[in-house]
Order: sequence, then structure tokens, then C-alpha cells
Amino acid sequence: MTHTKTVELEGHIIDSGTMGRCFGLVMDLGGEFEVEAFDVGRHKEEESYCRLRVSAPNEERLRSILHELHQNGANLSDPVDATLDPAPADRVVPTGFYSTTNHPTQVRHAGEWLDVERIEMDCAVVVDPDGPRAYTATLNAVRAGDLVVTGEAGVRVDPPDRPRDGGGPFGFMQGGVSSERPSRSLIERVAEALVETKAEGGRILVVAGPAVIHSGAGEALARLVREGYVDALSAGNGFAVHDLERAIYGTSLGMNIETLEHPRKGHKHHIYTISEVIRAGGIEAAVEAGLVEDGVMYECVVGDVPYVLAGSIRDDGPLPETITDAVEAQNAIREQAHEADMVLMLSTLLHSVAVGNCLPSTTKVVCVDIDPATVTQLLDRGSSQAVGMVTDVGTFVPTLAETVLD
Amino acid sequence: MTHTKTVELEGHIIDSGTMGRCFGLVMDLGGEFEVEAFDVGRHKEEESYCRLRVSAPNEERLRSILHELHQNGANLSDPVDATLDPAPADRVVPTGFYSTTNHPTQVRHAGEWLDVERIEMDCAVVVDPDGPRAYTATLNAVRAGDLVVTGEAGVRVDPPDRPRDGGGPFGFMQGGVSSERPSRSLIERVAEALVETKAEGGRILVVAGPAVIHSGAGEALARLVREGYVDALSAGNGFAVHDLERAIYGTSLGMNIETLEHPRKGHKHHIYTISEVIRAGGIEAAVEAGLVEDGVMYECVVGDVPYVLAGSIRDDGPLPETITDAVEAQNAIREQAHEADMVLMLSTLLHSVAVGNCLPSTTKVVCVDIDPATVTQLLDRGSSQAVGMVTDVGTFVPTLAETVLD
Amino acid sequence: MTHTKTVELEGHIIDSGTMGRCFGLVMDLGGEFEVEAFDVGRHKEEESYCRLRVSAPNEERLRSILHELHQNGANLSDPVDATLDPAPADRVVPTGFYSTTNHPTQVRHAGEWLDVERIEMDCAVVVDPDGPRAYTATLNAVRAGDLVVTGEAGVRVDPPDRPRDGGGPFGFMQGGVSSERPSRSLIERVAEALVETKAEGGRILVVAGPAVIHSGAGEALARLVREGYVDALSAGNGFAVHDLERAIYGTSLGMNIETLEHPRKGHKHHIYTISEVIRAGGIEAAVEAGLVEDGVMYECVVGDVPYVLAGSIRDDGPLPETITDAVEAQNAIREQAHEADMVLMLSTLLHSVAVGNCLPSTTKVVCVDIDPATVTQLLDRGSSQAVGMVTDVGTFVPTLAETVLD
Amino acid sequence: MTHTKTVELEGHIIDSGTMGRCFGLVMDLGGEFEVEAFDVGRHKEEESYCRLRVSAPNEERLRSILHELHQNGANLSDPVDATLDPAPADRVVPTGFYSTTNHPTQVRHAGEWLDVERIEMDCAVVVDPDGPRAYTATLNAVRAGDLVVTGEAGVRVDPPDRPRDGGGPFGFMQGGVSSERPSRSLIERVAEALVETKAEGGRILVVAGPAVIHSGAGEALARLVREGYVDALSAGNGFAVHDLERAIYGTSLGMNIETLEHPRKGHKHHIYTISEVIRAGGIEAAVEAGLVEDGVMYECVVGDVPYVLAGSIRDDGPLPETITDAVEAQNAIREQAHEADMVLMLSTLLHSVAVGNCLPSTTKVVCVDIDPATVTQLLDRGSSQAVGMVTDVGTFVPTLAETVLD
Repeated sequence: MTHTKTVELEGHIIDSGTMGRCFGLVMDLGGEFEVEAFDVGRHKEEESYCRLRVSAPNEERLRSILHELHQNGANLSDPVDATLDPAPADRVVPTGFYSTTNHPTQVRHAGEWLDVERIEMDCAVVVDPDGPRAYTATLNAVRAGDLVVTGEAGVRVDPPDRPRDGGGPFGFMQGGVSSERPSRSLIERVAEALVETKAEGGRILVVAGPAVIHSGAGEALARLVREGYVDALSAGNGFAVHDLERAIYGTSLGMNIETLEHPRKGHKHHIYTISEVIRAGGIEAAVEAGLVEDGVMYECVVGDVPYVLAGSIRDDGPLPETITDAVEAQNAIREQAHEADMVLMLSTLLHSVAVGNCLPSTTKVVCVDIDPATVTQLLDRGSSQAVGMVTDVGTFVPTLAETVLD
Repeated sequence: MTHTKTVELEGHIIDSGTMGRCFGLVMDLGGEFEVEAFDVGRHKEEESYCRLRVSAPNEERLRSILHELHQNGANLSDPVDATLDPAPADRVVPTGFYSTTNHPTQVRHAGEWLDVERIEMDCAVVVDPDGPRAYTATLNAVRAGDLVVTGEAGVRVDPPDRPRDGGGPFGFMQGGVSSERPSRSLIERVAEALVETKAEGGRILVVAGPAVIHSGAGEALARLVREGYVDALSAGNGFAVHDLERAIYGTSLGMNIETLEHPRKGHKHHIYTISEVIRAGGIEAAVEAGLVEDGVMYECVVGDVPYVLAGSIRDDGPLPETITDAVEAQNAIREQAHEADMVLMLSTLLHSVAVGNCLPSTTKVVCVDIDPATVTQLLDRGSSQAVGMVTDVGTFVPTLAETVLD
Repeated sequence: MTHTKTVELEGHIIDSGTMGRCFGLVMDLGGEFEVEAFDVGRHKEEESYCRLRVSAPNEERLRSILHELHQNGANLSDPVDATLDPAPADRVVPTGFYSTTNHPTQVRHAGEWLDVERIEMDCAVVVDPDGPRAYTATLNAVRAGDLVVTGEAGVRVDPPDRPRDGGGPFGFMQGGVSSERPSRSLIERVAEALVETKAEGGRILVVAGPAVIHSGAGEALARLVREGYVDALSAGNGFAVHDLERAIYGTSLGMNIETLEHPRKGHKHHIYTISEVIRAGGIEAAVEAGLVEDGVMYECVVGDVPYVLAGSIRDDGPLPETITDAVEAQNAIREQAHEADMVLMLSTLLHSVAVGNCLPSTTKVVCVDIDPATVTQLLDRGSSQAVGMVTDVGTFVPTLAETVLD
Repeated sequence: MTHTKTVELEGHIIDSGTMGRCFGLVMDLGGEFEVEAFDVGRHKEEESYCRLRVSAPNEERLRSILHELHQNGANLSDPVDATLDPAPADRVVPTGFYSTTNHPTQVRHAGEWLDVERIEMDCAVVVDPDGPRAYTATLNAVRAGDLVVTGEAGVRVDPPDRPRDGGGPFGFMQGGVSSERPSRSLIERVAEALVETKAEGGRILVVAGPAVIHSGAGEALARLVREGYVDALSAGNGFAVHDLERAIYGTSLGMNIETLEHPRKGHKHHIYTISEVIRAGGIEAAVEAGLVEDGVMYECVVGDVPYVLAGSIRDDGPLPETITDAVEAQNAIREQAHEADMVLMLSTLLHSVAVGNCLPSTTKVVCVDIDPATVTQLLDRGSSQAVGMVTDVGTFVPTLAETVLD
């Protein structure tokens, strides 16, 4: 006996490769398919539609095929309500819970499609029948009794189309990560995207690593903060300490960033900075007391730009403002991520991954690092809106600031 | 007035993404298409067929579209003979000459399809009406009067299908280059491919860089040569000198590879080695005279394994056997490449690119380097038969030799 | 008026470059010196002695010079007691507190030299007059009223000599970080050091990143744990999850490490693993329940090998055993570090830096990574006992295990 | 019986570590030494002097020690004439020939010290008694009958002092290679060195790789050529082709460097460029014919800036001006290297090594690459005048040009 279901694909399914992938995986998994309807979008803007009748020799095989089709955006044409099971205990999900992708997702409840709020990958989906509403919950956030979606029935995923040539400000980069790209021209495009995002009232989140300061780009980033191009900052204890060291002693890890000199005792400035800021009562207090008079943290404090400093096991100190609990820090980062319309990731793998984990696939991301492996890893998360540049953050940020502001 | 042509696509055009790409580019280039026939291969082994009627608002646009379709394997359904123009002078091709891909290619001459011999990328195609036969010629090899194919009419390209999961010994690696792959399991697969190639009577070409010797893998490679698993060696002057230094002095760039000691004066061994081998009259003479008693070059000489040592501007010496002229060396490499059924590229970007440039897309290639950027660059040449490993050649070659031979 | 002090240098101060550095920095800082006594050690084992009379035009300049000499191991010949000031509040050190190096250090108290316990870099030194004893305290651990050393008077630093050629098992590697070293010979030396450390009753700490599992080296590491060559494990939540995923599902990030296949739904194994282990009540509970039957974590549990799993902001989950607070995790790592006689750092920058921060310069360290930048950064911490290898952890660990155990 | 010799050390032998190294190696090699005279230079500018009496248990051991001391700049205090032996045949040196370092060197002949002309490493030294003069010869350039120096007697090496803090324009960078340096400040220093070199009438040699063009820096480099800041260019066939492609088609490897678009058929521009330039009769002819109207090669042609294009086995074409023979190309590069006062190496390992091999240790070198391994390898050649930057050449060259010219 053959088991059969009908699924539908919609959007730019041809040139994005979605249709090809779907056809291929049915065959790979030992199923068969019949194209019941196929309507090709002839123009760039036109979407295509394809209805497939999928069959498999047994129920289990069919389920496997439908799971994969589902992940690729093929949804059942005769939907049912999502299955809900209560979480048996805090932090424990029902067996077979639905684990999210980072694409826009809907779940069907009481005959209606609910958008899943705050979509991000590798979460459970909780449905609150009052409302009704659906939202993501990390494993850690699941509470006993939460109604958690299990299985894939009644779940609809809509992977964003990969834009074609010239498809908006982020259509400019395709195919791999390489340092052999025209750097200045790329920076101009990033500047345009930044300006456009602000013009549209969007929020820009900057994720910054210590290299921003060491490479002498701190002043340029501070200027972008001052001029209103940064709406939130996500960094670690180390970034803040280096920035504050530069403000207090003029050095970063003991080297004067402008004269390139190593003042004697300079290597102690790092630990002295932490000690002085603790003594002052924290970063804000240090700014108010006049201990810190410029730099990125200074501009955040005086410009009321919210920042999250996440702690890590390699921190010295840490500073009083640093959030040392990883789960608490992740929750703070999650807030930043969900509010952002564009994210600039500057020379930090750890913090960029943490932010990236919380982003829906629809958020614009620019990722800059001198190490191609870092850029590749960050772009490799299924976002259609991510561009990467393998370049020196020490020349990138100043050139970006000049292009945006001058 | 609308201009129209019909093209055909055949093979695993769906899951390889070919069909999607073709549909997409027609739209991108401002054309339209109609699917005249579409026959889906339902099983892994079954091929699909698609006939498209492509139209564009003017002749030039249509030509542009057909050029791109052609590069992607869509061929005109009503073919004509290829256009032939004589080369006006030595090394000068007719304007608009057809520049090859590395995929299997045919040209139509006098109503018949001729396979293009010795296909490799970026060459001209010369047709010899006597025979008749068609073959590639580098710009440098074109002679006045050669009949050179111009335009794309009458040329048929057949890009190899990208194999699905489990598609033969080389189906095991997909998706990107990473050091985070199971190294030992991958080496076992490479060993299997090596054994299988030999069992089928195939020829194995090893391309080796100096790091093979520095990292202590010379002995294991010598063993593979001795046991008949290497049919040809492609390397540079530097590789040979390091190998010979190890044979004569036990060091590589002055370090003893086994005891890890740096004998005093060890840094002079490199230049002394060259001097001694020149004095002996060359590598073969040095082997015969008993100056060199083991190592990769030794095994090549006593086992009659042909080698090409290509010179470069950073060479010391060079050794008498080194081919110092780049064009002459390239021609020697070209012979090796066209005779090979499987190529093992070991820690050399320069020589691997040189060999890779001459390979058709159907040759099996294994590329090993500790630098992911090198592996990415080497794999990024449109070969469906290439696998890359980011690993240490100093542990790779010994483990490979043990897996193949023990 | 000229200000003057006499300092002494002892040890292998000539060939370690210490004497040259000290002479140079006096001149650089505008001082003068006279060699009052100079006794050269003529043999490898003999130490040298040099007494310098240092003068400077003013007191401040002299202090600056003495600070630098001090950092390089030149100690005042007429010592005084260390200056002690009480910490004004929790986490706040007195101004001008002495910040430690990672070298063996003594402070003079009541006319006697006390060894500073648990020496590590960038800490304050607290003296407990009862006892009396001196010990390091991170900024975070300083409590109001602690007697903290300020200034450099009464502090003696003894940087370890850099061993000459052949100086013990760790004398084998000098000069820079490179992948072009004889890999197999180096692994043999590491194996010897491991065996020797165990034979002497030493403790071995392994710091491991997720790449150990992805690259297929998990089984070999598990074997080293089982056979008693690992006394403690320091890792992150990610390492443990990947290891447990392999034990439960046979995959790592969804790829079967042996067959290299990607089972359908494999990408969900990661998040399912976390969920299942939480459901079981943690790693130990999962082992007891039979959910986990092999792997590194399994061997640690059944072999009573203590492990620290430090949380980070990119974690999924985390697992119940993961320490999410960075300060708490750092303290746990600090314990591991101070108990270790030899540390094996395997493919993790974050955790290796965290461990390295807590190590005295006298602990043996082997650091293995495929990225030369990581190895360079880890070795660049003033340890004379650290060796680095740029190689593939996926071949390194199995070869090491075979060399040690077979 | 003890064998004894007296050697002398002069210069900044203390803070450069030379003295320490010399003391150490005598002991390492089983010798003893007595310091007969030791005169310390107390000020930055003052040189030190040390006379050592070295003894060893036998003649061979003593020779070994003296060899090492010699390499480190310790010269015999009672010199003899250098030993000269005639080369037995073309390209064959006498046994035991003296192989050069890249430091300033003198040989003693007929009681007089002759400066060795055109010093570079790994060469033989030929003495021409007429004159008299001494000069280096590569193995390849030795002719039968040449009087070649053998052994080390009568040879004096003078390694340059490593400058202290603030020692001229090139004193700014010390200690390792890292991308975490203040990029803009470093570029300013390089600009100052460039301007200063020109002001002193020095010659600047630029060594450039294809990435200069791909990364969009071609225009800025062309401007530096036009404004007289480049006296010679050393590159490969690939660099020239990419530059000419940009001039003719506006693309580099098919991508428009300003609009970032990939014109259809763009991938053919590379091979078409070569074909068109060959058709025109070469680069100069193409400029004269108006085919090429801007770019680096254009500026070189119209500004009479000499260039060397060295061929390699991965070249397409090659262009008519490309020197395909490696030995011939090396000789042309050698001329460039010896005439240069400052060398700017931009994103090419192959050509930079080739140039670096021919440079004396006294030539100023700036080496720029995005890959730290490349920068490390290039700096690791015993030059005291080399600085490296790990940065993006696509932002480096434009910023440098703006700093120098605007």
C-alpha cells in the first residue's frame, strides 16, 4: 500500500534551488512524486507555485520525507492543527518536540495560523491558547505545563528567498568568502545599507570584539555611536576594558595606539583599568567622575545607548557591569538581537555566534573579520540577508565612519 | 519582434540545481521561457529531460542568454556546425574565439559531433578537418592558420552531475571545507579510492610540496612510490632539494626529522645538497653514484616513476633536472594531468593550481592542506570529483600509507 | 644628584638573554650602570651571577628602571620588607598594588622570604601575617581588609630559564610556530612527556574543544581517559553535548563520524541530546540510566575523573552540570590548573586561554591546534615549558593514544 | 691538549642579544671561554666591545664553535687571508665553499678587507684578484675557474643591530606579527618612510600580487606610480593580466570592481585580455594603440617605470613581456632588488620571497598581507629593517596613497 500526501511550494522556488532540493530529497529518501501543478514566475518579482503529490511505501518513510520537505519550506496542502503537549517539568520538553529553524514560522491552532513570535533556531514553540499566541522558548526557558508543539503537523516554515543580482542593498555579494574583493566598494555598500536602515527608522546593533580597539578603530566606532548610527552594543568584558584603558591611559594592552609606543609599565594598564573602574563603582560612575572622557563606552553612557557586556571564563576582573552568568547574558543578548534590524559584527567570533543564534533569518547582517574562517562560520547560518567581508577592522571602521559621516 | 530559440537540458538537472539555475538566468537576463517538455527522472539513476523555448526582445539579448545557458549545459535543440576561423598568426586567436570550460565538450563539424580531445579550461578549440578531430590549444600553442572555433554555435558542453549521497567513493564529502571533519574516516575513504583506482588500472599523479618533507611525511610517500601507488610525481625544485637533503644529510632545512635536532651548520645543508647534486651531474647520477640512497626522488629513479620538477623564481640552484621555463614546464605538467585518473595534491598551492588548470572536470582529485584557504581555492574549479581535507600532511601521508599498505 | 641602587641577577642569565635585556633597558630608560661583579657559568649547568650598580638622574626615573629590571628577574641586593596596605573594600585593591607575573615569586615579610602560593599572572598578592603566608588573589577575590602588597620593594621574581638544546622532554621545540615540523616525531615526544609525567606521579589536565569530537578523535581521547592518562578534563558545554550526541545518536552535529553519512533529522540530534540529558537529570544520571554508554564524558563518569564544564553565551541548553557563571567557572578552572603538572590543550582557544591564565610559568603545556594563530597566542604567555603543534587534532589524538598505549 | 682562538665582538652586542647568544653557543658546543676584554657602551649610541678567548678539546670542535660564532658576527682577532679555490666546472663550486648570509660581509685578500659586492644569502663569494674585488655568485652563475672562497677564515660578517625603541622610521614595530595593531597609525609610519626614502633620493621597489587588483587597490597603486613614488615594479604575469583586464573591460576576474557586478561573459575577460594584448604585440604596444588607457601597467609604460613580469606554471598566456625562464627572471629580479632602498611587498608570497632572497639585510622592507603566515614567513629572514602588517591590501594601498599624496 502506498502512503500519500500533497505539499505545496511557493515563492522564488526555482532560482533559489528550493524546488530542485525538494525533488531531489524525495528521490533520495526512496519516495516518488507527481507534479500536480506547476506555475512558473516568469519575471524577477513573480513567484512560482508547485503542488507535489508525494508517495512512499510506508508511513514512516513518508513522515521522513515530509520532515525534510517541511524544513525546506514545502507545507502540507491540507493542514491540521499543531499537536500540543504539556512540558512535564521545568526545562524538560515533551518527547518529539518541534525544534525551530530561524525562518519565519507559523503554527496552526484552533484552525488559525499564528505567527511564531521571536523566531530563532533550536527552540521549542509554546502556544498560549489565551490570546491566542505562539512564541519560541529555549530549552532552558520551558516551564512545567507549557503547551509545547510536537511533530511537524500544523507548522509552516517560510524560508526567505535568496535575492537575485541587484536585489537591494544586500544583493551585492554572492558566492563564498574571500579577501580578494574590492574593499572600498564593499564598504560603500555597507555604508549605504547603514544609512538606509536609519532612514527607515531601523535599529542597528553593533557586536564588537577587542580587536576593534587594538587595531585603532575605537575612535571611529565611538564617533558612529555619537552620531546616532549605533542603537545598541553587544560586547564582552574584554572589549570594554580595552576601550576604557585607551580612555584612561591612552594604551591598549600596553601599546599607545597613536604613537605606537609601549610605555614602561604599560602592560599593567589593563589590570589597573579594571581596578580603577571597580573603585569608581562601575563604568557609568567612572564616566560621571570624569575618569573616562572618551571612547566607545563613554559615548554609550552619555548617549544612552544600551549595551550588554557578557562575561567569559577568560575575563580579568570582571567590570561591575559585566553579566557573568551565561544564561542571563544570553537573555540580554536575545533582547538586543530581536530588536535589531541590522547587525554589524566586528571581529569577534564568540559574541557574533551568540547574537547570530538569536537572529531570525530575515535580519540584515554584516560580518567583518580578518580571518576568513570566522566569516565563513558566521555566514553559514541560513540567513539570506548576511554579507561577509574579510578585511582589517582597523581600516574598515574608520573608512566606514568617514563614508557615512563625511 | 521577439527572438526565439529552443534548448534542451538532460541529466540530473533537478537535484544538481542545473534546471533552477537555467530558469533563473533567463529571467535575470530579461528573457522569457516556456517549458515545452519536462520529464522528471523519478529515481536516483534516472535522468530528467527538459526542453525550453527561450525568447528575448532582441537578438543580442537572446545571444547573451544562450551563452549562459550553454555554459550551464543547455544545448540548442537544432544544432548547426561550429564556426571555424583561421588563426591570423602564431599565438593569436581569431576574435570571438570559443574559450573552453573544463567539462566534456563536443563540437559539430560537417554534421557530426566530435569530442574535443584533451579538454581543459581557458583554451581555444582547434578543428582538424582531416580526421576529422577537435582538440584544445592554449593561446600559446595556437599556430597561424589553425582552424579555431568562434562563437558557441555547434558547441555542446556536458557538465558532470554532482553525485548524490553515497554516490561512489567520492560521494562522501559535500558542503564546504572544514577542519572539523572525522579525519581518520576520511583518510580511509581516500585509501579506498586509491586502491580502487589502481585495481581498475588507473594512473595516480601525486603533486607534492616541500611541507611533505618538512613535516616528516617523506618516508611514507617514498613507500607509496615503492609499492606502486604513485604513477607520476609533479613537484618543484624545492621539494626535490628538501627530499635529497634528507637523504644525504638526514635534515630538512637543517632540522633532523627524526631526532628533531638542529645539527650545527645544518642550515647550510640545503645549499650544499644542490651543489653536491650538480657536481654529481643530476639526481639520477646522484642515485647511481650512491650519494642518494633513499627518499621520494630515489624511489622515483629506481622505480622508473616519471617526475616533473618545475622551476620557480624562488628556487635555489636549480637542480639540473628542474625545468626552468614556465611554458615548457606547463607543457610537461599538462601531459601528466591528462594521463592521470586520480590526483593527490599534497600541501602545495602553486603546483596544485598548475595541475588543476590542465585537468578535465571528470578527473578524481584529492586535495590536502592545513590551510583551509588553499583547499577552498583548489576545490573551487567546477570539478564534481574533487574532495578536500584540511589536515596535517605530516600525519595524513603516513596514516594513508599504513591504511593502503598494512 | 644621582640616585643609585644595586641589583643582582642570577641563573642562566647570559644565554637566556636576561642580562642583555637588563643592560639594554637601563640604557633605554636613560640610566647608567656599572658591572660590580660578573661571574660567568662556563658549563651548561652552571649558573652565572651579575651585580649591577644602577644610577639615574632622579628618583622617579630610577624607580621606573628598577620596575623593569624587577620584571626581568633582577632583584635588589639589599632587600626590605614588602609594603602592605589593607584593601579598602571588597573587590577594591589599594592604589599601586603589585600585579603578579606568572613566574615563581617571593615576598619579604618580617625579614623572611615567603613563597607566593598559587602564583598566576595579573593578581594581587595578599599576605596573611598569621602563618605567615602569601598568596595570590584575583581582583574579584580581594576582600576588605586583606593586606595587599603595593609597589615592588620586597618582591622577588624568578623567571624560569629557557632550556638549551636537549634540555629534557620539552627542550625539543624552539623558535616559532609552524605546521612544517615533523609531525610524527613530535607526537612521539609528547607521548614520552605524558608517560614520564604519569611515571613521576604527576597530574595531567586535558582541555578539549568540540573539534576533538567533530574530527573523530573522541574515541581515542575516551581511551586515554579510561587508561588513566587523564586526571582532569576542562571543557565547555559544547564539547560535552557533541560527545554525548555521538554516544546517543552516533553523530556529531548530525554527521555520522564513522560512515560520514548525514542521517535525516541528524541536525536535530544536537538539541535532542541536550533535552534527553536534562530529562535524565544530568550527565551522571544519563550514564547510570544507560542512556550514554561510551565516549569521553562516559569514561570520566565511570572512572571518577573530575571535569569542569564551563558555560558560554553561545551554548545551547545548557546541560545541568555546566557552570554558567563565569566567575564560578573560572574558580573551578583555577583549581584544575593549579593541580596540574602537565596540560594538553586540544583545539579550543577560549578554554585554553582560561586555563593558561591560571597557570604558573613552570607547568608543562602542550598546545595543539590546526590554526597557527591559536597556537601562537597560547604559547605567547612567558611559559618556558610550553610547546605548540600546528596539526589536525583528528589525527593527533588517535596517533598519540596509539603511541602511548600500544 | 686544548685548542684556542681569540675572537672579537663589536657593536650593540648586548641588547641585541648577540653577546648572550655567543656565550651560550660556546657552552652548548662543549667549549669554554674567557672574557679578555669587555667594554660596555653605556649610551644608546655607544657600541660595546668584547674579546673572547675560546678553547675546545680538539681542533674539529673548535672549528665548529668558530663557525657558529662567525655566523653571529664574532670575527677572529688575528685574521688571515680567505682561502680561494677555483671552480672545477660551470655551476660547480669547490667543496667546502663559503655560503653567504644576507649581512654585510668582507673577505680578506692580500692582507686587505674587500667588501663583498651585491651581498645576498646562499651564494658563493668569488674573488677577482684584479681590481681586487669580491662579489656574490649564485650556484648557477659560477663559472669554471672562478676563484671561490672556501671555509670561513678571512671572512667577516657584520649583522646589523636591531634598533631600539624609537630607532628611526622602522623602529616602530617589534615582536611578532598580528592583525591586532593600530592599522591607521602604522600606515602613517609607512607613508613617512616612503616620503623620507624619496626625499633622500632612494629607490622604491613595489612587489605586487593579483590581490592588489581584485581588492580594488589598483587605482591607488597606479596613482603612486604616476606621482613618482614607485621606481620599479616586480610582479607576475597574473598581476599584469588582471590590471589590464580592469583597464580594458573594467573587471577583475570578471567582477566589476566599482559596481561589484558580474557582467555576463565576464569570466572570459581574463583570457580575452591576454589574447587582445598578444594581438596588439604586447603591453607597450597595447598602451600605444590606445587599447589600455589607465591602470598600473599603463602608468609604468607612460612613466618609464621599469617592471619585471616573472612567469610561473599557473599562468594563462603568458603576455609577451613575461619572462618565462625562472633563472632569467630571477636575474632580472636580482637587479631590481639590489638597486632598491625600500621594498613594499603587497599580497604576494611567491614574488616577495623571490625578491627577499636577493636582498641584503640592510634594505628597508614593508610587507603587507592579510594572511599572518605570509607576513611571518617574509619577515623571518634576518632583516633588521623589515616591518610587517597583517591587513587588507584593498584598504591599505588607498589609505597609503591618500596619506602620502593628499
